[in-house]
Amino acid sequence: MAPSTPRVVVGIDVKKRPWEQLVPLHNRWHPDIPPVADVKEGELVRVEMVDWTGGRVGDNNSAEDIKSLDLTITHYLSGPLRVLDTDGKPAQPGDLLAVEICNLGPLPGDEWGYTGTFDRENGGGFLTDHFPCATKAIWYFEGIYAYSPNIPGVRFPGLTHPGIIGTAPSHDLLNIWNERERKLAETDTGSLKLCEVVHQRPLASLPTPKNCLLGKIKEGSPEWQKMANEAARTIPGRENGGNCDIKNLSRGSKVYLPVFVEGANLSTGDMHFSQGDGEVSFCGAIEMSGFLELKCEIIRGGMKEYLTPMGPTPLHVNPIFEIGPVEPRFSEWLVFEGISVDEAGQQHYLDATVAYKRAVLNAIDYLSSFGYSKEQAYILLSCCPCEGRISGIVDSPNAVATLAIPTAIFDQDIRPKTGKVPKGPKVQRSPDVLKCTYDGKLPVTKNLGGT
Amino acid sequence: MAPSTPRVVVGIDVKKRPWEQLVPLHNRWHPDIPPVADVKEGELVRVEMVDWTGGRVGDNNSAEDIKSLDLTITHYLSGPLRVLDTDGKPAQPGDLLAVEICNLGPLPGDEWGYTGTFDRENGGGFLTDHFPCATKAIWYFEGIYAYSPNIPGVRFPGLTHPGIIGTAPSHDLLNIWNERERKLAETDTGSLKLCEVVHQRPLASLPTPKNCLLGKIKEGSPEWQKMANEAARTIPGRENGGNCDIKNLSRGSKVYLPVFVEGANLSTGDMHFSQGDGEVSFCGAIEMSGFLELKCEIIRGGMKEYLTPMGPTPLHVNPIFEIGPVEPRFSEWLVFEGISVDEAGQQHYLDATVAYKRAVLNAIDYLSSFGYSKEQAYILLSCCPCEGRISGIVDSPNAVATLAIPTAIFDQDIRPKTGKVPKGPKVQRSPDVLKCTYDGKLPVTKNLGGT
Amino acid sequence: MAPSTPRVVVGIDVKKRPWEQLVPLHNRWHPDIPPVADVKEGELVRVEMVDWTGGRVGDNNSAEDIKSLDLTITHYLSGPLRVLDTDGKPAQPGDLLAVEICNLGPLPGDEWGYTGTFDRENGGGFLTDHFPCATKAIWYFEGIYAYSPNIPGVRFPGLTHPGIIGTAPSHDLLNIWNERERKLAETDTGSLKLCEVVHQRPLASLPTPKNCLLGKIKEGSPEWQKMANEAARTIPGRENGGNCDIKNLSRGSKVYLPVFVEGANLSTGDMHFSQGDGEVSFCGAIEMSGFLELKCEIIRGGMKEYLTPMGPTPLHVNPIFEIGPVEPRFSEWLVFEGISVDEAGQQHYLDATVAYKRAVLNAIDYLSSFGYSKEQAYILLSCCPCEGRISGIVDSPNAVATLAIPTAIFDQDIRPKTGKVPKGPKVQRSPDVLKCTYDGKLPVTKNLGGT
Amino acid sequence: MAPSTPRVVVGIDVKKRPWEQLVPLHNRWHPDIPPVADVKEGELVRVEMVDWTGGRVGDNNSAEDIKSLDLTITHYLSGPLRVLDTDGKPAQPGDLLAVEICNLGPLPGDEWGYTGTFDRENGGGFLTDHFPCATKAIWYFEGIYAYSPNIPGVRFPGLTHPGIIGTAPSHDLLNIWNERERKLAETDTGSLKLCEVVHQRPLASLPTPKNCLLGKIKEGSPEWQKMANEAARTIPGRENGGNCDIKNLSRGSKVYLPVFVEGANLSTGDMHFSQGDGEVSFCGAIEMSGFLELKCEIIRGGMKEYLTPMGPTPLHVNPIFEIGPVEPRFSEWLVFEGISVDEAGQQHYLDATVAYKRAVLNAIDYLSSFGYSKEQAYILLSCCPCEGRISGIVDSPNAVATLAIPTAIFDQDIRPKTGKVPKGPKVQRSPDVLKCTYDGKLPVTKNLGGT
Repeated sequence: MAPSTPRVVVGIDVKKRPWEQLVPLHNRWHPDIPPVADVKEGELVRVEMVDWTGGRVGDNNSAEDIKSLDLTITHYLSGPLRVLDTDGKPAQPGDLLAVEICNLGPLPGDEWGYTGTFDRENGGGFLTDHFPCATKAIWYFEGIYAYSPNIPGVRFPGLTHPGIIGTAPSHDLLNIWNERERKLAETDTGSLKLCEVVHQRPLASLPTPKNCLLGKIKEGSPEWQKMANEAARTIPGRENGGNCDIKNLSRGSKVYLPVFVEGANLSTGDMHFSQGDGEVSFCGAIEMSGFLELKCEIIRGGMKEYLTPMGPTPLHVNPIFEIGPVEPRFSEWLVFEGISVDEAGQQHYLDATVAYKRAVLNAIDYLSSFGYSKEQAYILLSCCPCEGRISGIVDSPNAVATLAIPTAIFDQDIRPKTGKVPKGPKVQRSPDVLKCTYDGKLPVTKNLGGT
Repeated sequence: MAPSTPRVVVGIDVKKRPWEQLVPLHNRWHPDIPPVADVKEGELVRVEMVDWTGGRVGDNNSAEDIKSLDLTITHYLSGPLRVLDTDGKPAQPGDLLAVEICNLGPLPGDEWGYTGTFDRENGGGFLTDHFPCATKAIWYFEGIYAYSPNIPGVRFPGLTHPGIIGTAPSHDLLNIWNERERKLAETDTGSLKLCEVVHQRPLASLPTPKNCLLGKIKEGSPEWQKMANEAARTIPGRENGGNCDIKNLSRGSKVYLPVFVEGANLSTGDMHFSQGDGEVSFCGAIEMSGFLELKCEIIRGGMKEYLTPMGPTPLHVNPIFEIGPVEPRFSEWLVFEGISVDEAGQQHYLDATVAYKRAVLNAIDYLSSFGYSKEQAYILLSCCPCEGRISGIVDSPNAVATLAIPTAIFDQDIRPKTGKVPKGPKVQRSPDVLKCTYDGKLPVTKNLGGT
Repeated sequence: MAPSTPRVVVGIDVKKRPWEQLVPLHNRWHPDIPPVADVKEGELVRVEMVDWTGGRVGDNNSAEDIKSLDLTITHYLSGPLRVLDTDGKPAQPGDLLAVEICNLGPLPGDEWGYTGTFDRENGGGFLTDHFPCATKAIWYFEGIYAYSPNIPGVRFPGLTHPGIIGTAPSHDLLNIWNERERKLAETDTGSLKLCEVVHQRPLASLPTPKNCLLGKIKEGSPEWQKMANEAARTIPGRENGGNCDIKNLSRGSKVYLPVFVEGANLSTGDMHFSQGDGEVSFCGAIEMSGFLELKCEIIRGGMKEYLTPMGPTPLHVNPIFEIGPVEPRFSEWLVFEGISVDEAGQQHYLDATVAYKRAVLNAIDYLSSFGYSKEQAYILLSCCPCEGRISGIVDSPNAVATLAIPTAIFDQDIRPKTGKVPKGPKVQRSPDVLKCTYDGKLPVTKNLGGT
Repeated sequence: MAPSTPRVVVGIDVKKRPWEQLVPLHNRWHPDIPPVADVKEGELVRVEMVDWTGGRVGDNNSAEDIKSLDLTITHYLSGPLRVLDTDGKPAQPGDLLAVEICNLGPLPGDEWGYTGTFDRENGGGFLTDHFPCATKAIWYFEGIYAYSPNIPGVRFPGLTHPGIIGTAPSHDLLNIWNERERKLAETDTGSLKLCEVVHQRPLASLPTPKNCLLGKIKEGSPEWQKMANEAARTIPGRENGGNCDIKNLSRGSKVYLPVFVEGANLSTGDMHFSQGDGEVSFCGAIEMSGFLELKCEIIRGGMKEYLTPMGPTPLHVNPIFEIGPVEPRFSEWLVFEGISVDEAGQQHYLDATVAYKRAVLNAIDYLSSFGYSKEQAYILLSCCPCEGRISGIVDSPNAVATLAIPTAIFDQDIRPKTGKVPKGPKVQRSPDVLKCTYDGKLPVTKNLGGT
């Protein structure tokens, strides 16, 4: 007889706030957040999740909710799940937890998403010095396809994936994180680095009790107080996986996560209908609520067997991913290149970040000659299935990074062609993305050579 | 009646040295290197090329030729080709030159290649602080496949491409290059940057008359003297294309190159049988001599139409690439992740270069548990069709970079599996790559956490 | 604001019998079956459907339900849907109805399926003279993957599609169908054709009131009596689409269906989790209940514009299909060939059916050397994503047909290898498919040359 | 040191006639044709070949050479090669010969090809009753791409493959062939079968000394006389492989051929730059001269291990093929369907040949509404990389066959669209294919329903 349908271990009611959910959510990484469910090796379970903001961004005609978003709320995660083997013995530190992503998608009845760029004073994005305003695009879904009323003429199949999937850190690992990130934050001189070209701020988001949600731990309790002050923020990807934003981690993929605490304590959230490599606008995937059907396997002693630490301790490891055979595939790609020379013409040394910035800028300007506003292009390259590659990282002084866009997502032929002007385009694609004003005073990076 | 077979515009005799070839080669970028042939729009022409070193690396049992290689010789290019429209009017500055790559491959009778890592004192490579010795692997070809006597158990189809394809710079552009690179070189404090993690040296390779070859310009003549002192080195990719090392630029692809001088003056060289994204070991593709059959089209005024400068002048542009439908495709990939925390555990801010370094190190160590030496793995990841991605570039402080390896290139299943030790492997894959001693005194980066 | 979630136009309760469903089903093609819902161009609607037998095959340990299945019940379809343009004007005869398949899958809570072969006296299958017994395999789903307790060691992602999608025939078209099929049925001499090699019976399934279900038409009413005697059976694909069994008609595909009656009257059913080209075992896909989210577009006058009749009347047309970019893709295939020489060694003239039969037989015997029973292999080749090709249809006297199997669906390497016996296999894969006895007396086709 | 470049075991001078080549060719299958070379397991060898007609079809402006072609000349093959293992022991009957296709392509200096349809009185083609005239299209190559001056607006990458590759039959197998084909030929009543819908003639091509070429066997000698009267014609694919016309048998593929005589005696020829499944126009691939670089491996006893006879003797086997990862891939396909109802409206029983004929006719007429002549479309569908599938072979009485065309090969969007007429097309694509008159008296099949 058939195994029962996937067991729902975390259910979500999208009409409720994150802290009102029946199974409590959390938005920090901490070893002591209690598991909300036990799952067995080989068992197919279903985890539902809110969108990363827990419903603070609306399906409406304004980007004000993006502009004023308090980033201390992020990301609301479902879990932790305590993983047991078939004999009931929990996963142990040193094991590897193989998580197969069997299915995922939007929550029925909530089939929409959004992509945004933050205000420069509130998180920004990869190109925030060029685009300091908060913007937003709404996306609707038709099965596997997404389209946006704010970016007409584009439609693509989603390579849906969870933005965040990870195991709980141990106390030791948590300390390592907090220490190294604090150290970086302290170097902030207020100048505009990295190498004076990546302007996003802050340098790191340190632990804060503000808006901290710790699952079953009651807010305000002494335990909560202690944990909230040390629990790691969820923004960066780290040794435990976390916010990896690997866009191909879709149906049929597998994640091999290191186990740092008994039971592994697996959490997941931040479902993306689609994302481009880099997720450049920061709030950059098509963000949505969703469900994830997964299956776990414990590889006993797998950390030692398969992972080599890359740092001062045995905890400095990274997960491994296995990409499956089921995804939208495209035959033709238009590829934009960037080298590590910045907008001021300054040469940087093998800096892939600078090179990628230039590649993205090149692509945005290119698309703008086909009728899209630059803001539309920026959002689009953040969430469509484009590929960001490190093509050359040794030919000093120039790193070469590329951004490849599948041409099939457009309703026009966007390739360069002989003849004065591409036919049809140059017509503005309207309406535009939703925009806010930028009220800050930081200077915008001018593109001196462009018109 | 059929058009004649591709017209050979540059023929190569691999038994001759680069400066002895019938059609003279060049190894610098300069606007005044005279064209060696005229080609018409739409005409299919064949350009043959020596390997990038012009035959200085041998099919033998020693890596000494890699260790002692003088990098001022590189790269020997074929061309320039002067491109005319069907009316005989040459391409003009401001045009876009569309070059279709119709076919390419090894030169008949010379079907072999090599991959190497340079000595740390002589160019190094992306991981030179971990691997300071010069090494070499020989590759033989069986049609589309390559295999190496130095890395047993691996065989893969090549995604063959020219490492270098570019147009001649104008004098103005050449000045921009020389100025910005000189400025960078002058910042060299001898310290170990970038961000103290990328150790490759020098920071930039400035013009030098040493080993300079300028096509038809007679060596030692006053004209040669002048040009040799200002002609740009070919190592980095720049605004004119050049050493882009875009591994997918294979059969059926197109390059849209900006035209800076009358006739475009297209040059190409550095044929790669295969390369991984990043070409991490520096001499890192499967390097070979080869032929390229190409077809040009002039898009009049295309620079203004399709390229937006990203820098202080209208010359700060980058080519666009179009990837075709014909390439080896793989269904299953194993993906290694890196975050921008270095081997010392130090946190870097959204640094994709550091993140990619960690991803590559993770992959090398992983493969070493399957019987490969780390040097074999380093070489392999440099030249096999692996993909290097910028997965997350906004989740401060961690950039997330990934390296995806197609599992089908191995003769064993390299995925993590339950059970003590993967069966079969752990056996050393021998013989190993060819290795030299490292005679310098720079410290090696230790992996403190690993065994 | 977001459009509401897909509107459910036909909902299914899998605990109810087909004739008890709230929205009535039908299992015949007839112009006068009343539409159950109106749908508008561009509207995303959801159609749920029972499995083709309406629940008569169970998730149990016996194939008796397959053996005794009454084929007059098939196939239970959902619909018809009346399609209107945005002005409310229905589709007209002569239009083309473009149906986009936006999403589909199993019904939540009913995630299982089955594949069977019928008894030779009750429908049989492509190879019924070799395999006269009824058999059954159960399949369970893990997200995109299916596995069977009856065929161990195989697991594959489904290329899920509706086996049946079609528009209602007009009275004229219905008459054409009935006449030509009756004529064929009358030629049945009881001999073993086609060309004495395809033994499946009957030659055609003619209209019958037995088990006839006509949607809102009340059973037994005079109207029902008349319609039941002329309504076409759903087994073959015909001019209206219908039982096309095109295995790639999955997410993102489009069907262009001719419109024969006002409103188009679109029906669909027979959801397949996966199917191989040919669906050789007859009950051969992974049969299941399911849902289909679709979107319609009316191309006015499209039949004349895009379809050319291939027969004596303007009604002799066929639909067109457009296959989308999202499907499981496989890199390596093992291909079995058949030529139009039958098991007795008799030469047939360019007969692709005979050639395909031999290709399938070749593949079954091959797989049986890897530990599968022939019945397991037969079922597997019927429902896994294998490709059946007409490779040569002109090299008289031999048609060449091929069957390509993706090697990645097996947990062992099934390619031929040097060395005595493939390692590991030859071990029986047990348990086996569920089998019934064959109680008839028709002779089995012996494979004279095989051992 | 590198193995020497592929050893040329059969070289071709395209300026010479087939019987003038240095290494003698053959155009029949016979066990006693002496090998022309020995090749060792693992050795990379190069076999060159003339086009199948040995140069009788010209790159000119007339199809008269096609019309008057004497089919007794076909196909000129290179070989046989005697295959030895590394110890020098030849392959034995009962072994399996694994042949890897490492590389292939047109012969340098002869980069062109042709596609034709024969006159109805001289071989015809799959649709000869619709298209009784001989026609021809010339194709030129630009690296991987082919284009035709006779079919403007189409260009595609070739999936180049040898039309013929096979081992020599034993005497026993030769007798089986001759007997069964003779028997079929004798059934020829002059009627228009198969099932009165496939009109191509003759039913089988029996042995004939006319134009017979037997390699080193001197024409006219007693040995030649005897062999010529029994040597099998090369037109159909058979147990030894032969004219399989498997279009995906390109670079990186493998063929596993049964060995019937000592040494295997491998022959190959009939190089195709590209072909569609079915090769419907008969002279239907892009026919050319070419080279094939291959590598052999002997699987001792492999016939018994891997092949099961499907017929009265152990010789009734078929080769197995393994398709590699390197081929042009297309994302979007337009699919035409046919059912087994013929042009007269007559119903046939599960006849895949009839169904495929209707699918091809549907596709031809469809394309003709985009400006192509029907003859252009017929030729195109014969040689472009389209896929012919047996979609349903069990839903009696209708077999469902499909023909899938990659949309990317056209310079216009050929998908159905809303709106009166597709823009741009309807303009005749001229010039047309080269056509001859049909001087016979057989009736043409009228399409009664079409206009």
